[in-house]
Amino acid sequence: MRVLVLGGDGYLGWPTALHLSDKGHEVAVLDNFARRQYDVELGAESLVPIEDLSTRTDAWHEVSGKRIARYEGDLLDAEFLFGAVRDFRPSAIVHFAEQRSAPYSMIDREHAVYTQHNNVVGNLNLLYAIAEIDPDIHLVKLGTMGEYGTPNIDIEEGWLEVEHNGRRDRMLYPKKPGSFYHLSKVHDSHNIEFACRIWDLRATDLNQGVVYGQQTPQTALDPRLATRFDYDAVFGTVLNRFVIQAVLGQPLTVYGKGGQTRGLIDIRDTVECIRLAVENPAGRGEFRVFNQMTESMSVREIAELVADRFPGPVQIENLDNPRVEQPEHYYNVKHTGLVGLGLKPHLLSDTLIESMFDIVGANKHRVNDERLRPTVRWRGAVETS
Amino acid sequence: MRVLVLGGDGYLGWPTALHLSDKGHEVAVLDNFARRQYDVELGAESLVPIEDLSTRTDAWHEVSGKRIARYEGDLLDAEFLFGAVRDFRPSAIVHFAEQRSAPYSMIDREHAVYTQHNNVVGNLNLLYAIAEIDPDIHLVKLGTMGEYGTPNIDIEEGWLEVEHNGRRDRMLYPKKPGSFYHLSKVHDSHNIEFACRIWDLRATDLNQGVVYGQQTPQTALDPRLATRFDYDAVFGTVLNRFVIQAVLGQPLTVYGKGGQTRGLIDIRDTVECIRLAVENPAGRGEFRVFNQMTESMSVREIAELVADRFPGPVQIENLDNPRVEQPEHYYNVKHTGLVGLGLKPHLLSDTLIESMFDIVGANKHRVNDERLRPTVRWRGAVETS
Repeated sequence: MRVLVLGGDGYLGWPTALHLSDKGHEVAVLDNFARRQYDVELGAESLVPIEDLSTRTDAWHEVSGKRIARYEGDLLDAEFLFGAVRDFRPSAIVHFAEQRSAPYSMIDREHAVYTQHNNVVGNLNLLYAIAEIDPDIHLVKLGTMGEYGTPNIDIEEGWLEVEHNGRRDRMLYPKKPGSFYHLSKVHDSHNIEFACRIWDLRATDLNQGVVYGQQTPQTALDPRLATRFDYDAVFGTVLNRFVIQAVLGQPLTVYGKGGQTRGLIDIRDTVECIRLAVENPAGRGEFRVFNQMTESMSVREIAELVADRFPGPVQIENLDNPRVEQPEHYYNVKHTGLVGLGLKPHLLSDTLIESMFDIVGANKHRVNDERLRPTVRWRGAVETS
Repeated sequence: MRVLVLGGDGYLGWPTALHLSDKGHEVAVLDNFARRQYDVELGAESLVPIEDLSTRTDAWHEVSGKRIARYEGDLLDAEFLFGAVRDFRPSAIVHFAEQRSAPYSMIDREHAVYTQHNNVVGNLNLLYAIAEIDPDIHLVKLGTMGEYGTPNIDIEEGWLEVEHNGRRDRMLYPKKPGSFYHLSKVHDSHNIEFACRIWDLRATDLNQGVVYGQQTPQTALDPRLATRFDYDAVFGTVLNRFVIQAVLGQPLTVYGKGGQTRGLIDIRDTVECIRLAVENPAGRGEFRVFNQMTESMSVREIAELVADRFPGPVQIENLDNPRVEQPEHYYNVKHTGLVGLGLKPHLLSDTLIESMFDIVGANKHRVNDERLRPTVRWRGAVETS
């Protein structure tokens, strides 16, 4: 199949492009390099050095003999986006090309507006591009488990059978997201469901858990194929950050008591989930939702796991929670859709964490300590601007 | 109380400002005159002539002895918005200042993007302005009954008690909006609920039904105080349009078989609902939702009512439905919140329609026939651009 990966220069977009190419698909990546700009803005950097996109695609060709085409531009530029879709003629589009950090969206008004404008309008342009150019294109959209929040009932996959006053309906699962970033994904989901309804588009919305890990079989083939590894408090995800803190001999910083439970997924499962979704498209008019996660753990449990696995001493430090979220809550998530398509999860009880210690060890001279501490406060967003 | 009415030059914003001023509140209006620009763009015009904003406020002063302050600018201009809120120091802000036509949002990609960008970012800027300047300000936000769509269960006021697999939670009512405009209001509602949660703001979200009528006791005091009366297929609401078609001797154009049922509200009740919400503010941290409608009717029933009341012969014509919506459906809406605050509804069985015939009769030389026919098609939005 011909697959266009939007945001294909990013943490997950790049390994996804490699995985799909490795499995025999014709792949192109599209990116505006916004993620690299956020590094400049924040004074942060990937722990593992990454190459520019053309070096990456050249290296992949050298290593695998396969080509990955490149489109460099912005989804907000409709003319560019329509041109790329017309030129590549994909049968599936994987959409990673959004600002994806909750803390970044909560820095201040400008960052909240930037996040919602960038994500919602980019996605709207994409829906129109698909509808106008080829409504048979399958949209595979990255959402987040954070769209759901932490309801006191089981979290289903996107839809909920509701019984109320003796009548029934199948409704979009009610969302209670926890940041302006998470809200942007909820807005996207509503817009996509509508587009499926009125234009008979086919879409898969992937509500992804917190991703951990930095290597896939393809990125490990050559240092030039490495994907980014973020450890800063704005873009770094929790398990990756704990691993880095352990290696540096710093305390693992748990927000609040760490009773917040989150869905998790190994980066190798992420890229495989995308492949499964792409190769098993939603039907015309179908808004299909999968919860793209493989297990749930509390933040405290994640910290204890990292401390337990690390060969040296590790301290756990509880910080005031900079976010506004429920400290302890019910959390039971259905995630059988992707398993039904064939996913064989890598669980945290595998050896992955040990390999992450090695990656961090080899790059620890690149860490800027100041970037590990949270600086963005949910309640304080309005005080700083 | 000091009340700032955003969109105070519009169809409902202006009568609301007059009503609040008449009831003794200190009122200011803020507007960027976008609604007047849409007329220029579409070649349409209010059936009843309207004056510019400064003439309106001067006339109100002449008639009532009361002043209404004016702020002219755009919510997307955060510096202007923050300045206006700092300057006027309202205790409540009534927010009508959004693009409010479903067909307009469905014209093409540019209009969909414009609508969501304008509405979502304007509202986000407003949330930050309130949080930063005075989180005690009560936000009274205009939403729409169209956010809900037509679920097969009873429509509650914004929140739903869900029981699922033996557990319970109170959740935001699941929405299924019918246009990119309606979606923008759903996005707003989610953003506002979040702001109440993290910043302890106080907000009332008014899911308003289809408004009919053109006069309130205040606008009728002087021709210079008249509010707009839209009859075109893009901005005209259904009952107003039927009245005009009847007076012109044209068939009433029912989309499809007219089985679509909608909530309705008299313009005099709209302004009163706003007063009741303003004078009975939501609590700190409360996201309060009212369904601002007084009765439900199918489009066919509305057409038959107008035909029945009109003194001359009236034909009803069924057009292919340009929208994508359920032709027949369950529709049972709870709308007791505003009645609980004291609303005494004007129902359609009152004499209002007859007075509308007179208004239209006096202005029928101003009608441009071509504007009455639908030109925007939901499925066709992607074919025209």
